[in-house]
Amino acid sequence: MVHNITIQPAEFVRTLLKEDRRAELAELLDSMSSNDVVYLMSRLGKKEQYKLLTIINPDEAADVIEELPDVQAAEIIENLDAGNAAAIINRMKSDDRADLMSELDRKDAEAIFTEMHPEEAASIRKMIEYRPDTAGGLMLTEYISYPASLTVREAINDLRKNAEKYKNYHVRYLYVVSEKNHFVGVLQMQELLLAGSEQKLSEIVIKEVTAVNVDTPLDKLIDLFETHNFYGFPVVDDQGQLIGVIRRKNVLEAENERATYEHLQTQGIVGGDELRTMPVMVRSRRRLSWLSVNILLNLLAASVIAFYQDTLSSVIALAVFLPIISDMSGCTGNQAVAVSMRELSLGIIKPGEAFLVWFQEIKVGLINGLVLGILIGLAAFLWKKNIYLGLVVGGALAINTLVAVSIGGTVPLILKRMKIDPALASGPILTTITDMVGFFLALTFATIALGRLT
Amino acid sequence: MVHNITIQPAEFVRTLLKEDRRAELAELLDSMSSNDVVYLMSRLGKKEQYKLLTIINPDEAADVIEELPDVQAAEIIENLDAGNAAAIINRMKSDDRADLMSELDRKDAEAIFTEMHPEEAASIRKMIEYRPDTAGGLMLTEYISYPASLTVREAINDLRKNAEKYKNYHVRYLYVVSEKNHFVGVLQMQELLLAGSEQKLSEIVIKEVTAVNVDTPLDKLIDLFETHNFYGFPVVDDQGQLIGVIRRKNVLEAENERATYEHLQTQGIVGGDELRTMPVMVRSRRRLSWLSVNILLNLLAASVIAFYQDTLSSVIALAVFLPIISDMSGCTGNQAVAVSMRELSLGIIKPGEAFLVWFQEIKVGLINGLVLGILIGLAAFLWKKNIYLGLVVGGALAINTLVAVSIGGTVPLILKRMKIDPALASGPILTTITDMVGFFLALTFATIALGRLT
Repeated sequence: MVHNITIQPAEFVRTLLKEDRRAELAELLDSMSSNDVVYLMSRLGKKEQYKLLTIINPDEAADVIEELPDVQAAEIIENLDAGNAAAIINRMKSDDRADLMSELDRKDAEAIFTEMHPEEAASIRKMIEYRPDTAGGLMLTEYISYPASLTVREAINDLRKNAEKYKNYHVRYLYVVSEKNHFVGVLQMQELLLAGSEQKLSEIVIKEVTAVNVDTPLDKLIDLFETHNFYGFPVVDDQGQLIGVIRRKNVLEAENERATYEHLQTQGIVGGDELRTMPVMVRSRRRLSWLSVNILLNLLAASVIAFYQDTLSSVIALAVFLPIISDMSGCTGNQAVAVSMRELSLGIIKPGEAFLVWFQEIKVGLINGLVLGILIGLAAFLWKKNIYLGLVVGGALAINTLVAVSIGGTVPLILKRMKIDPALASGPILTTITDMVGFFLALTFATIALGRLT
Repeated sequence: MVHNITIQPAEFVRTLLKEDRRAELAELLDSMSSNDVVYLMSRLGKKEQYKLLTIINPDEAADVIEELPDVQAAEIIENLDAGNAAAIINRMKSDDRADLMSELDRKDAEAIFTEMHPEEAASIRKMIEYRPDTAGGLMLTEYISYPASLTVREAINDLRKNAEKYKNYHVRYLYVVSEKNHFVGVLQMQELLLAGSEQKLSEIVIKEVTAVNVDTPLDKLIDLFETHNFYGFPVVDDQGQLIGVIRRKNVLEAENERATYEHLQTQGIVGGDELRTMPVMVRSRRRLSWLSVNILLNLLAASVIAFYQDTLSSVIALAVFLPIISDMSGCTGNQAVAVSMRELSLGIIKPGEAFLVWFQEIKVGLINGLVLGILIGLAAFLWKKNIYLGLVVGGALAINTLVAVSIGGTVPLILKRMKIDPALASGPILTTITDMVGFFLALTFATIALGRLT
C-alpha cells in the first residue's frame, strides 16, 4: 500500500475516508513526514478535513494539527465544531496550543474555551497573555518538578506511577522547587538512580543552573543559548516561582519564525501569514491594506511630476527615464535597508549609530551612483544623441543614488529607535522619498537645461 | 571594572591592549555575550583586532572567532598572518571551522592550510567538499565512538583517560561501530555505569537509531528532526561508515541561515552576506553586480514608452501615472512572489502546481485589480476632470494587476522547476514583465482614446 501514498496521498486518503477505515488512516498519518501531512491537508476539502480529524481519535488528531503551520492549523480548527476542536486542542503541547488559540478568530476561540475544562482554559488563556517572543510565550508547561524535601525513593515512585503521562513530556530534567514552588535547581534522571533512596532531593540537586524570568525577550534567550550549551532553562515568574521550561529548540524555531515574518512584511504580506487555501476575501483584504497605503504614497510621489508638465512636454524623452530613476533608486535603497536590517539583527550596529551607517553608505553610494549615472546617461545620450539629456538623466540618478543609500541605510535604525517595525515601514518610506527626490532632480535639471534639450 | 565595559567596551579593550593586560582581556572576552563580542569586534580597527587575537592564546581566540558570523570571522582571519590563523582555526569546532575556511579567499585559505598539520588540513578540505546544506556540510566530526567488541570497562577507561579532550565535545552519546567502522548503534553515558564492567558494548548498544547518509539534504534533515525527538543523528558515508554526528541545533541554525540569505537575495544583496566593515570596493562591486542587471532590464522595459512618444506628448498627464503603474504592479506581484516562496518552503505547493497557483492568484487579482484601478482612475479623473483619462489609467492598472499576480505567483515555481534560485531571479523577471505590459497597456489605451483625452 505504501508506494501508493507517495503518488496520490489525497486520493488515497479520500478512499480510506469514504470506507471509514479509521485504523488505516491513523496509521498512515502517523507514518507520514510532517511535510507530507502539511501538503495532504492543503489538498483536502473542508468536509474531508472535518471527517479526517473526527474519525481518528483526538490524540492522533492533535499530532496532525501540531505538524501544521499555525495559520493552516487555525483554518482547519475553525472549520470543526467547538467540541471536537476542544478535545483535540486539549491533547496538544502547551506551547503549540497557545500559539494556535491566539491565531484563531476571537469568536471561535471563545466557543472552544467554553467547551474545555475551566482549569485547562484558564491555563491556556494565561499562556496567551505572555508576549509571543518572550520566555513566557515560548515555554512549555509540561515538566516534572518535585519539592526539595522529597526523598529519592518518593521521587522514583512518582516517576513510576505517572510514567504514562510523563512519557509525552519533552523535557529531560527534573526540576526541584521549594515549598513555595520557588526554583531551587535541576536533576538528571540518572542522578536519582545513583543516589541513596532515603536521600533528600535537596542533598543531590544541582544548583548551578540559572532560571530565566518569564518576560525575557527572544534576543536575550538566543544569546543565553549561544553562551550556554544547555538543552533548556527553567522559567520563573517575578516572584521566582517555577512556571515553565524553555528549550533550545523553541528559541531557535522562534528566531526562525521571526525572520520569516520580517521577510513577508518587507514583501507586503502584512496582516499575518497568507496561505492560498484561505478565503479569497481575507487574502484580498489583507493584501489591499498594504497596497492602498502604497498607492497613496505613489500618488504623492508622482505629484512632483505634475508640477513639471511644461518641461515634460518639451522633452518627452524624459518620460522614458522617470520610471527607471524611480525603480533603480528603490533597488539601491533596498540593498542598504537589507544590510542595515542584517547588521541590526547580528548586533553589529546599534539603533543610535545612524550617523556611522550613513557615512559608510555614502562611500558605496558615491561609487555606485557614478557607475549607474554613467550607464543611464550613456543610454540617454546614445538614444537621442544629446549630451545634455545624458547629463540631466545621469546626474539625477547619480545624486539620487546617494539619497537612496542614505535613506535606506539609516531609516531602519531610526524606525527601530522610534519602536516602529523597520521591516514593515522602511520600504514604503524609502521609495516615497527617493521617488520624490529623483523626479524633482531630473525635472529641475531638465528645466534648467531646457534650451539645450530641445 | 565590569560596569565600565557596558558603557564603552571598545575603549576599555583598547586600554587593556595598550597595557598588554592579557589575562584580563581573556577573562573579559570570556564573560561577554556573543552579541557583545560581535559588536566589539566590529568597533575595533584591523590592528587592534590583530593584537587582540594574538595576545590571547589560540584556544581563547578560537572561542571569540566562533561567536562571530562567518563573514565577519573571515574578514578578521584574513587580516592575520597564516601561522596565527592556522593556530586559531585548529582549535575551532569542526563545523564552524569548515564554514569559515570556505568563506575565505582561496589564496588566504591555501596559505593557512600549508601552516596546518597535513592531516588536519586534509580533514577540513574534506568537510568543505560536502555541500553546505547537506548532512556532510552540517555535521560535527568530534564525537566518541567505540568498537562493539570493547568491554564496558575498556570504554570507561578510555573516557577517563581522555576526559580533558572529550570535555569540549558537544555530543552526549557514545557511538558504537563495527570493526570496519560501520555504524552499529548508540549508548548513553549512564548506560555504561549501569552495565557489568565485563559486558561487551555489543550487548548493551541501542540499535533502534537510524543513521543519515552524508548527502542528505537540509529539507530532509529538518523533517527528520521534526518527526523524531532526538538530540542528534549519526552520519554515515555511502559505505555505511560513521563519519560524523549532526545535531538538531546545526539543522535549525542552517534553516535559519538559509532563510536569511534568501531574504538578502530578494533585496539585492546577492554576492554573499555584506557587512559595512568590509572594504568599500567589495561592497560596491557586489551591489553593482545586481544593480547593473537591473538597470539593463529597466532600460528594456522603459523602451516600450519610447514607442509612444506621440501619444505621450499629446497627453502629458500620462507621464505622471506611468511610474505609479510600474511601482504598484511591482508591489502586487511581489506579494504573490512572497506567498509562493512561503508555500514552497512550507511544502504546501509543489513546483509543478503553477496552474493551481495561477488560478488562486487570479481570484485575488480580480478584486485587487478592480480596487486599485478604481482608486488610480478616480485620482486621474479628479485631477484632470476627464473620465477617459481615468478609464485609461485605471483600466491599465486593473489589467496589469492580474498580470502581476499571475507572474508573481507562478514564476517562483517555474524557476524552482528549472533549478534556478527563485529568491534571486523572481523579482527582476516580475518587474521587467509587469513594467513592459503596464506601459504597453496604458499607452495603447491612450492611443485608442486619444481624441477623448486632449
